[in-house]
Amino acid sequence: MSTVWKSRYALRTLRIKSSTIRELLKVTQQPEMISFGGGLPAPEVFPVQRFEEACHTVLEEHGAQALQYSATEGYEPLREMIAKNMARYGILAKAENVLITSGSQQALDLIGKLLINSGDRVLVEAPTYLGALQAFSVYGAQFLTVPIDDDGLRTDQLESSLRLSPKFMYILPNFQNPAGVTLSEGRRHQLIFLADKYGIPIIEDDPYGQLRYEGEHLAPLVVLDRENLRRDNGFTLGNVIYLSTFSKTLAPGIRLAWIVAPPDVVSKLVMLKQAADLHTATFNQMVAYEVAKDGFLDQHVKRIRQVYRERRDVMLQALQEFFPAEVTWTHPKGGLFLWVTMPEGTDCRLLFRAALAENVAFVPGDCFYGNDLADGCRHMRLNFSHSEPELIREGIRRLSVAVKMHLRTSHAPLEVAGGRR
Amino acid sequence: MSTVWKSRYALRTLRIKSSTIRELLKVTQQPEMISFGGGLPAPEVFPVQRFEEACHTVLEEHGAQALQYSATEGYEPLREMIAKNMARYGILAKAENVLITSGSQQALDLIGKLLINSGDRVLVEAPTYLGALQAFSVYGAQFLTVPIDDDGLRTDQLESSLRLSPKFMYILPNFQNPAGVTLSEGRRHQLIFLADKYGIPIIEDDPYGQLRYEGEHLAPLVVLDRENLRRDNGFTLGNVIYLSTFSKTLAPGIRLAWIVAPPDVVSKLVMLKQAADLHTATFNQMVAYEVAKDGFLDQHVKRIRQVYRERRDVMLQALQEFFPAEVTWTHPKGGLFLWVTMPEGTDCRLLFRAALAENVAFVPGDCFYGNDLADGCRHMRLNFSHSEPELIREGIRRLSVAVKMHLRTSHAPLEVAGGRR
Repeated sequence: MSTVWKSRYALRTLRIKSSTIRELLKVTQQPEMISFGGGLPAPEVFPVQRFEEACHTVLEEHGAQALQYSATEGYEPLREMIAKNMARYGILAKAENVLITSGSQQALDLIGKLLINSGDRVLVEAPTYLGALQAFSVYGAQFLTVPIDDDGLRTDQLESSLRLSPKFMYILPNFQNPAGVTLSEGRRHQLIFLADKYGIPIIEDDPYGQLRYEGEHLAPLVVLDRENLRRDNGFTLGNVIYLSTFSKTLAPGIRLAWIVAPPDVVSKLVMLKQAADLHTATFNQMVAYEVAKDGFLDQHVKRIRQVYRERRDVMLQALQEFFPAEVTWTHPKGGLFLWVTMPEGTDCRLLFRAALAENVAFVPGDCFYGNDLADGCRHMRLNFSHSEPELIREGIRRLSVAVKMHLRTSHAPLEVAGGRR
Repeated sequence: MSTVWKSRYALRTLRIKSSTIRELLKVTQQPEMISFGGGLPAPEVFPVQRFEEACHTVLEEHGAQALQYSATEGYEPLREMIAKNMARYGILAKAENVLITSGSQQALDLIGKLLINSGDRVLVEAPTYLGALQAFSVYGAQFLTVPIDDDGLRTDQLESSLRLSPKFMYILPNFQNPAGVTLSEGRRHQLIFLADKYGIPIIEDDPYGQLRYEGEHLAPLVVLDRENLRRDNGFTLGNVIYLSTFSKTLAPGIRLAWIVAPPDVVSKLVMLKQAADLHTATFNQMVAYEVAKDGFLDQHVKRIRQVYRERRDVMLQALQEFFPAEVTWTHPKGGLFLWVTMPEGTDCRLLFRAALAENVAFVPGDCFYGNDLADGCRHMRLNFSHSEPELIREGIRRLSVAVKMHLRTSHAPLEVAGGRR
C-alpha cells in the first residue's frame, strides 16, 4: 500500500524516529494516571477570561486585519512589546531584532535549517531538550555532548569539544529541560569566554527564565556577550541568538515564541520562515499583544511563580519523604522539571513500565541524550507544573513503590551474591 | 558585524532569495495604490461576528483545552469534519488521513522535507505557485517545467519530463495560481494515466476548488486516482497527496490548512511536523471547528462565490474596455487570479514600474517560473478578490495607461523600422 511514497522518502526522513515521549503521552492520558511526563503548564493558571476579552477587542476593533495575511516578521506592536520587556533583563534588542515564530519549536527548526549541513557537529548539553535534538537531527546534525551538573554545563569539560569545531552550541542556561539545573554565573562568563576563544556561536534557549522561584536572576548569555563587546576584547557582536516564548507565561495552545538575532540573521530567518509557513497566525499575535499589554503579563507571571513554587516544594518534600536514600534529585530554582538519578545499573525504561502499573508516569532519561548514552537510563524527568499539589504527593508516593520494587529486583543478584535474600 | 553567523549558513540558506512579491507588497501598501498584487481574500467577507462567537464558546466551554498543548495530527473533531466535507467531493478520506497544518505553506514545506533530497527533480507547471517553488527550493529541488494553456497543464508535453524521473509532480488543477486556468476533465484522466505509467506520484494543491463561479465541478485527481484503483488496472492506492486550506473560505490570518495522504505518509509527516512546530495552535483549530460547523462554512462559501464572481466579471469587463487588442488574458472559472499576456518582447518588470507611477500594482509573471524563463516577463498576475468593484475598474483603467505607454515605448524601434511613427 502506497509504497510509491515510501520509496521516495528523502534521507532526512529516515533520520527521524517517533519520539518516545509522544508515545508515552498517549498512555498517560487515562484519567486514573498521574502524569509527571509531559511538560504541560497548569491549565488552572491560563488567563482564560483575559483571552476572551482580548479576542473580543481584537475582532471588534481590527477584525479585518486580524483575519488577514500579514508580514512574516510578525505583528509590529508585539515585536516592540517583546523588545521592551526584554530590556528589563538587559537584552538590548530592537523590534527589528525580534522574529515571531510559531512556538519555540519552529525557532529551533528554522535555526537548524539556517545553519546545519548534513554531518555538521552541534554541541549540546547531556541531557538536553528533546525537541532540539529532533529539530537539529532532521538536518543531519551530529551531536557533541558535554555533561552537566548542579551548576549546569560543565564548562571545564567544554574545550575538547570546541576544538572539534561544532557549528554552534545549544544551551539552556535557566532551569534546564530536563534536569532543572541553572548555569552558574561563573560558568556563564567562562562559556562566553570559550565561545569567543574558539569562535563558536551560541543558541541560548530560555523558555523558563521568568519562572524563577528562588535566588537572583542571572544575566542571559546574550547580555554577557554584549558586555564582552563593550569591553572591546575582540568579541563579535551577536555571537548569541536568544530564544524565548509565551508558552510558559501565557499559554502553549496559541503557539507563539520569538527569536532575537542580529538583523542580517533575522532577514535570512524571515526568508526561511516565509517558505515554511508564510507567517505566524495574525490573530494569535494580536490577541497575545492584547492579553499581555498594560502590565498584565508581569502580574500573571507572578501568579504562575507562586503556583509552580508550591508544586515544586510539594514534590521535593514528597521525594524526601517517600524515596529511598540511594536515589537523588536536583533542586530546581525555577522552571517545570526536576531530574531524578537512580543508582548505577538502573533501567528507567523498565522502571517506567513498573510505574505505569502503579498509575504514575514520567519520562525515562535516555530520551534526552544527543548520543546514545546508557547513563541516561539512570534518570527520570519529573514535571511538577501540571498536577495539583495533592496529586503530586500521591504520584510521588506511587512512584516510590515502583522505585523500591525496581531497586529490589534489579539489585537482587548483587544482594544474593552478598548473602542476603 | 555578526559575520560569525554568515560564515556558518547552511548550503540551503544560500538557495533562498527574497521573494519579489514580498518586496512588491511593501510598496503597494500606500493608501492611494490600487493593488492587484497580493493574493488576499476580501476582508469584507471575513465572518468576524461568527469568529467572535466561536472564540467566546471555545474559551467558555473548553478554555483549558484550547490554550494547552495538543496532538501533532490535529484536533480530532476538525479532522473528522474535514474528512466529512471532502466526501461530498468524492474524496473518501478518514480523519486519520487528515493532517492539520499551519497553512498550506507548511504542507508544502513538510512535503519538501519528506521527499526532496538536494538535486532531486520536481515537475511543476510553468507558471506555478511561487510559494511551492520557494518551499521545494529550500530542499534543493531542480525543477522540470511543463507549460500550461487555457485547459491547464499540457499533458501532451508531459512524457519527456516524466522520463527524467521527477520525485513527484506538483499540480494546481483548479483556477491555478497564477494563471487562473483549470485542468480539463480529459487532461485529468490523461495525467493520472501518465502518473501511473511512469510511476510518478502527484501533489494536488487545491486551495481554490470550492470557489467556482461557473461551470461544473471536476473530479479532483485524488478521486480519479482511486477510481483507477477500483478498475483494478494496477494503479497504486494513494498515488496522490491532496492539499487544501481554510485560508480562502474562512480566513488566512488563522493559518489553518490540511494534507490528505495515506496513513503511513501521514505518520511520517506527523514526525516531521512535530520537529517543525509541535502542532498547529489548538485554539485556532477549535475556533475554526466552531466557526465552520452546522453548515456555516457552506453558506459562507456561497457568499464568497457571489462577491468574487462579481469582482472577476468587473475585471474582465474593464480589461475588455480599456486594454489594447494585442493584449490577452485568461477567463478564470473560479479562484482569485487572472493572467495577462503581453506581446512578445514585453518586460513586465519595466511595466511594473510604469504601473506604480500610475498608482496600480500587479505581480510580474517571471516570479512564477521554476526555471528562469524570459517568457515569464510577458505576463502579469492580477488578483480580483481583494479590491472592491469600483476600485477594480479604476485600477484596470490606470493599468491600461501604463500598458499602452509601455507598448508604445518598447515597440518603438520596430515601428520606426516599419516606417510608422
